[in-house]
Formats: sequence, C-alpha cells, structure tokens
Amino acid sequence: MPAKGESVDADVVIAGGGVIGTAIAWRAARSGLSVTLVDPGSDADKASLVAAGMLGPVSESVFGEQDLLNLNLLAIDRFPGFNAELEAATGMTTGLRTEGTLAVAYDNDDLAALARLTAFRHSIGLKAEALDARQCRKLEPFLAPGTRGGVLAAGDLSVDNRRYLAALRAAAANEGDSRSLRAASVVVAGGWATGKIEGVPDEIRKALRPVKGQLLRLRHPAAMPHIVTRTIRAVVGGRDIYLVPRADGELVAGATQEERDDTDPIVGAVHDLLRDACTALPAISELILAEINVGLRPGTQDNGPIVGRTREQGLIVATGHFRNGILLSAATADAVAALLSGGEPHQAWAPFGPGRFG
Amino acid sequence: MPAKGESVDADVVIAGGGVIGTAIAWRAARSGLSVTLVDPGSDADKASLVAAGMLGPVSESVFGEQDLLNLNLLAIDRFPGFNAELEAATGMTTGLRTEGTLAVAYDNDDLAALARLTAFRHSIGLKAEALDARQCRKLEPFLAPGTRGGVLAAGDLSVDNRRYLAALRAAAANEGDSRSLRAASVVVAGGWATGKIEGVPDEIRKALRPVKGQLLRLRHPAAMPHIVTRTIRAVVGGRDIYLVPRADGELVAGATQEERDDTDPIVGAVHDLLRDACTALPAISELILAEINVGLRPGTQDNGPIVGRTREQGLIVATGHFRNGILLSAATADAVAALLSGGEPHQAWAPFGPGRFG
Repeated sequence: MPAKGESVDADVVIAGGGVIGTAIAWRAARSGLSVTLVDPGSDADKASLVAAGMLGPVSESVFGEQDLLNLNLLAIDRFPGFNAELEAATGMTTGLRTEGTLAVAYDNDDLAALARLTAFRHSIGLKAEALDARQCRKLEPFLAPGTRGGVLAAGDLSVDNRRYLAALRAAAANEGDSRSLRAASVVVAGGWATGKIEGVPDEIRKALRPVKGQLLRLRHPAAMPHIVTRTIRAVVGGRDIYLVPRADGELVAGATQEERDDTDPIVGAVHDLLRDACTALPAISELILAEINVGLRPGTQDNGPIVGRTREQGLIVATGHFRNGILLSAATADAVAALLSGGEPHQAWAPFGPGRFG
Repeated sequence: MPAKGESVDADVVIAGGGVIGTAIAWRAARSGLSVTLVDPGSDADKASLVAAGMLGPVSESVFGEQDLLNLNLLAIDRFPGFNAELEAATGMTTGLRTEGTLAVAYDNDDLAALARLTAFRHSIGLKAEALDARQCRKLEPFLAPGTRGGVLAAGDLSVDNRRYLAALRAAAANEGDSRSLRAASVVVAGGWATGKIEGVPDEIRKALRPVKGQLLRLRHPAAMPHIVTRTIRAVVGGRDIYLVPRADGELVAGATQEERDDTDPIVGAVHDLLRDACTALPAISELILAEINVGLRPGTQDNGPIVGRTREQGLIVATGHFRNGILLSAATADAVAALLSGGEPHQAWAPFGPGRFG
C-alpha cells in the first residue's frame, strides 16, 4: 500500500500478473501513466492460464442476473476491438475464434434446458439457432450418434487464453517505463488470493473465495484431422462440458467448478471430463491427453466481479471475475483506466463496486 | 563395439541404463571387473520407470509357457536376497512389499478365469487362496460392492520401481572405477531400442518390438487413509487392471499393452484405466491423479527375454524382458555376471539365448 502523504515514484502500482492486472497495466501505461506491475504470486495462481478462453455473454449463470448480463454484453462487444489493438501493438496473435458455439444435448431434459437458453438469448436480442440432430452432426460430423439436438450461438467467441495473456504481458512490458513500490494509486488484481494481500479491506477479503476448476488439454496426433471446428458445449446427464478448439490442433475440455481450494487434479473429476467428452465426441478417445490443468477462480458472493475504488485512499481493486476473467479483461482495463484518470467507468460497472459488500 | 584385437581399457562396457543394464553393471563391478555403463538413451526410454513394480511369477501370459514359468520362479526366489544386498550396499530402500496380490472379478466369466489361474498356481506348488466377495472386502474394505470374488496370491511381491532403479544406479556408481569405450566385452541392454544400436545382430533386431504401456500414478490427499494394503488385480469386463500400493501413499494403476511405438498418453486409454480402477475401488475417485506415465516395453517374438552371448565376439545382449524387467533384473544380472566370468548362466536361461532367433 502507498504510505499516505509521501512523495510518489509511480502513478500506479498494480499487484497481479494475470489477465486482469496485465490488461490494466497495458491500458494505464498506454494512457501515459507510469505503471509498475507487481506479481505477488506465480503462474500457478493464474486462473487465466487454466481457462479455455471461451467468450460467451450468456450462460446458465446469468439467467435473471440482469446486471451481470449487461456487463457481459458490454464486454463481448468490447473484446474484438481491444484484441485487435493488442495484436497490432505486439505483432502477436491471440487465437481469436469466431465460429461460434454449438451446444448439444443427449436427452429430453438437457434439450429442454437448451431451449430455455435459446429463448433467453432471443429475448435479449442475441443470436441462437435451434438445430436438430442431423444439423448438429452436419456442422460437427464427429458428434456422437446419440446427440439429440442443439443450439448454435453464432456470436460467441473464443481466444487462446495463454496466447492472450502472453500478448498482454508483452504489450504491458513494451509500455512499461518505471518500477516502484510507492505510488499514488495501487490496483490490486490478485485473483482469488487478493484477500491475502496486506491492506485489502476486510469486506473484500470476505466476499472472495476460491472456486477450483479442472480442465484437460487434448491434442490431435500428427496424422489425425481436427475433429471440431467450433466450441462445443455438451450437457451430459445434467453435467456441462465444453470443448474449445484451437487452430494448432489443441482441444480444451472443461471444466469442473468446485468449492475447494486445493490445486490437485482428482481422479473422479478427470474421469468425468474424459467420459463426458467422449460421450459428446467419440473420436476424442483417439486424442493425446497433453495436460491436466487445475486452477482457482476468484469467486464472489454474488458471482459478479469487484472493480472500483475502495475506502483506502489510492487503493483500487479489480478481482472476483470468477469464470469470466478473460471475457471481462478488456472492459475491466477500460474501467480501471477511467478510475486512474479521475473519471468514472461505464455505467455497467456501477453494480460491481467494492462498496456493495461494505 | 570393441575393435577386435585392440588392447582394451575396461573389462566390460554395458550400454543401457535401465534396471537390466544397471543391475548387470553392479554385479559385474562387484565381482571385480572394471565396468563402464553407457546409457545410449534417456530416462524416457526406461520401461522400468513406468512400471508398477509388481513381481508375480504367474500370470495369464505364462499359461503353458513352461520355460518362461521356470525362469520366473527362479527370478522371484532370487529377488528378495538380491534386493536385501542392494539395500545393504546403498543404505537405500526399494519399497519391497510382501503382502501379496489379491485378484478380484466382477462377473462369472472373470471369476472363472481366476479359478483357472488358481488351479494352475496350485499345480506348480504356488500359494493361491480362493476367496468369496465377503472375504475379499474384509481384506480390502474399499473394494466395490459388486466384487464377485477373488484369489489371494500370498507369495507375490512388489517393489517401488523408481526407488529400485535409483538404488541400482547408486550401487553401480559406488562400484564403478573406470570409464572407457573399448572393452573385452560389451553388454547391450538397451530395452526395446537395443535393435537401434550399431553392431547388434540382425536376428535380435528383428525379434524385438516396442509394446506401449500407459499407467497412472495416484496419490492419497493428505487427510485420507490409504485405501489399499496389497496389490489388487481386477478383471473388469475382460480387461485387466492392477493397483499397486506404496508405503508413502502412492497407488499405481496400470497398464495398457499396445502394439504401437509412440509415447503419448491417449484419452481412451487413460479413461479406461480410470474407469476400471474406480469400478474396482470406488474411493479411487477421491485420489490425486499425480502422473500419467507412458513407456515402451521391449517385447519379443515369443515373449521371453534375450540374454546371452551373440555371434559377435565379446558382445552380450540382455533385453526383451517385456513386462518383467524388474522381476527378471536380479536373475539377469547373475546370468550376465556368469557369462562375463567365462561361465554359464543357470539352466533356466538356456531357452532364452540370442541363438533361438538365428
């Protein structure tokens, strides 16, 4: 924390080297501020490194959560432009995919749940196309014969989470011009571990909890054609699984959502992911199981992020992004850049200030 | 290969740093020979590093293979003494377990196969006790309720394959006193890749093939009691799975047996291992999936090892140990030590010379 009243060496110190902290650092530096990014943890703490990079504004979790939906809609509108600027600034590619998401179901209950989601998407003006089994398998020929039907969400995106973070880090480093541990502003973006950082107010500490996620990175053997073109979400016996393809042949399958704070890969979870993935796409059984990733997402009491000024002078937090850190990263960077320049973030952020837990 | 007729700098050069080559090196050095152990590969080539370390003289594979059975019986008799000497020489422990193996079955066909194995064990004077489901679950309380029955093979052993190789390496290093690439004798113990080493006769090259194995290393979470006391073999729908416990809480589950030479972990194989392991012991779903190991075993045309002098002067091979490299390591070291001192190995080795493929 900055010692109040002392002279300052940097405009902003940001604690947190994940997508949120790094995106903020890049934008703040680009806006002319001197920025120091301090990473209090290691890459093992970065939820974004164990993400699949799926970017959809709507999922089961935002049914009836209008504020979060508004924010997600803002975020997905903002993302492609931010990403293009990031790629231009770094000469790197982030693997943005625009083929959309195909959600599929295997029984009537799962199909009915998809239909409710489709109606919800339509009600808010989003694209969603109900497909029968034949149409699903025409789009994705390796889907299991037992597929009952599905929904194509053409507007959903995905990005390669690792490339994206690497590009953000390169962009922030390009802009960096100082290092200091005293600053006029401190932005704490430490993910779920934000509460462990000294000086973070108690109410924020209490609002945060780690939510464990386990996911798999699969790879096609050299001679095998890629079996998926677009993001697949499958509901198998009430469980959700997603499969996110990469141009280089990687296929990410995830993810568990568990109220525990260890980072061990667990047999039952990995088994369920493998089984459900193979139920959806039998050819997955031929893929290479390249990695098992485990991370802790920063969950909050109301599933919304916590972004804004705290009652500590100069202290800004940007955490609690739960499963949507990559999706929200660009919009969060804009919001914090506004706060750092003395302005206010977009009104979509109003419900997500630290004050709501005070 | 030694250049014939040239003066020599070492009594023996051994190519191969796995359990076979290293066990040989240790015994040869201890017998007073100057030994150089050259490892032409890396640890990734060592089948013994992806083994479970199960040491049983009898399995389905030796039904009717009397020669191989004789050798295996010799080997398991020899193993404890060799191992004790190894531990004494190094001050290291190899994790030898003597609780035996419990084989269990889930349907009538699998149970009938176990009964045949029991009768076979009895016919050759080995211990084997048929148990009903209640008795099995009394021995191993975490076995699935669907367990139909089993057989306890009290004489079977297991050893921690990694500790065992580490101890062999330490023992060999302790005895080593020279390095040379010219020698009176060369022992090639390069596992499945022996055929790739220059100078190895064609008939040996042709007799060898890699057999892929995939297995899992599971670990108990800190607060969880160990769920297995002895080696478990389960036959699940015709598939064999074994579960080998370690004193430190590791539990090794394996293994596939595939006629392919890649070393990638494959989704379908890992899924089958996880499913079958959980079928046998539902509590396995709570364990940590610590590692997935993939290795290539040195298979031969008749499933037996290839140990003996070749028609190349001074060239001895010791390979083709397939799934039994650890079991056979002590006996192989004795056999090659005998050859190096101008003697002959135990008569059990007679059927397994290189000449049989000539």
